[in-house]
Amino acid sequence: MSATIHQLRDKRPPSLDPLIALVAPELNQVNSVILDRMQSEVALIPELAGHLIAGGGKRMRPMLTLAAARLLDYAGTRHHKLAACVEFIHTATLLHDDVVDGSGLRRGKRTANLIWGNPATVLVGDFLFSRAFELMVEDGSLRVLKILSSASSTIAEGEVNQLTAQRQVSIGEDRYLNIISAKTAALFAAATRISAVVAERDDATETALDSYGRNLGIAFQLVDDAIDYASDDATMGKSAGDDFREGKVTLPVILAYARGDKSERAFWQAAVSGERSSDADLAEAIQLLTDSGAIADTLVRARHYGQRAIDALAPFSASASKAALIETVEFATARAY
Amino acid sequence: MSATIHQLRDKRPPSLDPLIALVAPELNQVNSVILDRMQSEVALIPELAGHLIAGGGKRMRPMLTLAAARLLDYAGTRHHKLAACVEFIHTATLLHDDVVDGSGLRRGKRTANLIWGNPATVLVGDFLFSRAFELMVEDGSLRVLKILSSASSTIAEGEVNQLTAQRQVSIGEDRYLNIISAKTAALFAAATRISAVVAERDDATETALDSYGRNLGIAFQLVDDAIDYASDDATMGKSAGDDFREGKVTLPVILAYARGDKSERAFWQAAVSGERSSDADLAEAIQLLTDSGAIADTLVRARHYGQRAIDALAPFSASASKAALIETVEFATARAY
Repeated sequence: MSATIHQLRDKRPPSLDPLIALVAPELNQVNSVILDRMQSEVALIPELAGHLIAGGGKRMRPMLTLAAARLLDYAGTRHHKLAACVEFIHTATLLHDDVVDGSGLRRGKRTANLIWGNPATVLVGDFLFSRAFELMVEDGSLRVLKILSSASSTIAEGEVNQLTAQRQVSIGEDRYLNIISAKTAALFAAATRISAVVAERDDATETALDSYGRNLGIAFQLVDDAIDYASDDATMGKSAGDDFREGKVTLPVILAYARGDKSERAFWQAAVSGERSSDADLAEAIQLLTDSGAIADTLVRARHYGQRAIDALAPFSASASKAALIETVEFATARAY
Repeated sequence: MSATIHQLRDKRPPSLDPLIALVAPELNQVNSVILDRMQSEVALIPELAGHLIAGGGKRMRPMLTLAAARLLDYAGTRHHKLAACVEFIHTATLLHDDVVDGSGLRRGKRTANLIWGNPATVLVGDFLFSRAFELMVEDGSLRVLKILSSASSTIAEGEVNQLTAQRQVSIGEDRYLNIISAKTAALFAAATRISAVVAERDDATETALDSYGRNLGIAFQLVDDAIDYASDDATMGKSAGDDFREGKVTLPVILAYARGDKSERAFWQAAVSGERSSDADLAEAIQLLTDSGAIADTLVRARHYGQRAIDALAPFSASASKAALIETVEFATARAY
């Protein structure tokens, strides 16, 4: 069924437009909850949180919650508050990430930690995280609380795991996949799964939507990793080579290192230690990644997870919602071309 | 009734011993939950968390949860897990506080951020916080979840409020009380209140135990503030003058500033800006605090809240638990003598 829909629009490159069109009116409701519930008498809280929340994020996770609910023909509004929870958890994570990474730019804007300092950024992250749990408690579903509290501790574990793997180019593909599954994909999985709970569907539906979100999350992250070595600066607000200059160990690097000879391995060791970060070094890195097939194979891996996300939707009959969710995966994995 | 009990032991200085004796066996159960649930496959998490959790904290908040449950003759074990939640939330807060303050010592040990760095400390704090919510969800009481999620966001708001008031000696007593009510007393209040929920008591009981914990928390904090200018280094693992040298604005300073003449106010402005932090400056500060009655009146304020905590227990009939809770307040407010 999905194949039919797929073929109807096969000349147009995949985009997020169908997803955005599907959820636009409800996304306004979610944005109202977000704006309303990030307020505090302590003025610095909405000021700092608003910088990031209003700062051009795609609202990818809340959109997925809304689209999954549409897929299930859920007619209520409980998921508006829960989609806001998901965005609060995501925002709290980004704020703490920026402190952890010592970042200076996100989505082309100066990061909160650069403007307001690390202390305020840590504490406002804590506030948003607590506020997310308050919103969940207001909703009152223990099942949703379980899904999102478990996702939150998985994310934190993944972040610590990544920190301990920092600048270690030999960590291997399996550990890297564990890290991004925890750090990135767990919240995507929770975002789509909770819609099955509010729509009061069975475990199989929950599992299917969890699988969709989780595999999409992994695919997104892997394509991001590849784009960093392949993009022409325009895609995703990231400049090509950002990961390289920061010595980040991502899948392309892990594959190129594993496949490399002694001198290539030494290059990657030096690169992730921050000793090779010039434009010439980046050009050499891209050459090695291309020659070893590491970028191409990262994208093959991404499409594998993308395909799994699409197949997770197989039990659902054809609909505009299903088509939009499928095209979102296609968009995610086609961004690098 | 409490007065009678009070008189039975009136020659012995008040101590925490009755509280400790009352809850010791159950505190072992709580410690087991804490040790069990701070584990993770990511080894850095139990390593870093264990440094603080095993590091000599009094477990004041979990002891209060246990004692409040005993006061209500609660015979179950649900509160063991919930007392562990409270300690996890407290520990997460301490980890983030140490990052925010750039602290180097806590309870006489090097702080986690000094040993493992700010990034790991922030992220392990996030993990403990998430894990606390997972434990609450396992317990399954939405009422408890509401109390603790609300306390958590109040704490974060209080922390941000304190940050924005940093080094401002003119913030005034009311704002300072708002800050410590949020930052310190909210978790004390939640710790005692949740026992009324697990014991399935009425709202009046919840409110009474909330009031006990909240007022005790404020009293504790105010006595801490006074001790910093009055202790002989032994009390509480704090050295006299720590707050002064860090330019912390606490109630004694707020009172002395408010009561001071122009030159005294200039002294305090300079002190909280970090321009007056020598031993001679500390001696001058203590002189000003003594002459203005600021230390003595901080202790008077502390006893006011301590008395309110004791009076909040009036509805409960006499028992060893009640006596222990009362003596805990007396201990808290008598520490400075």
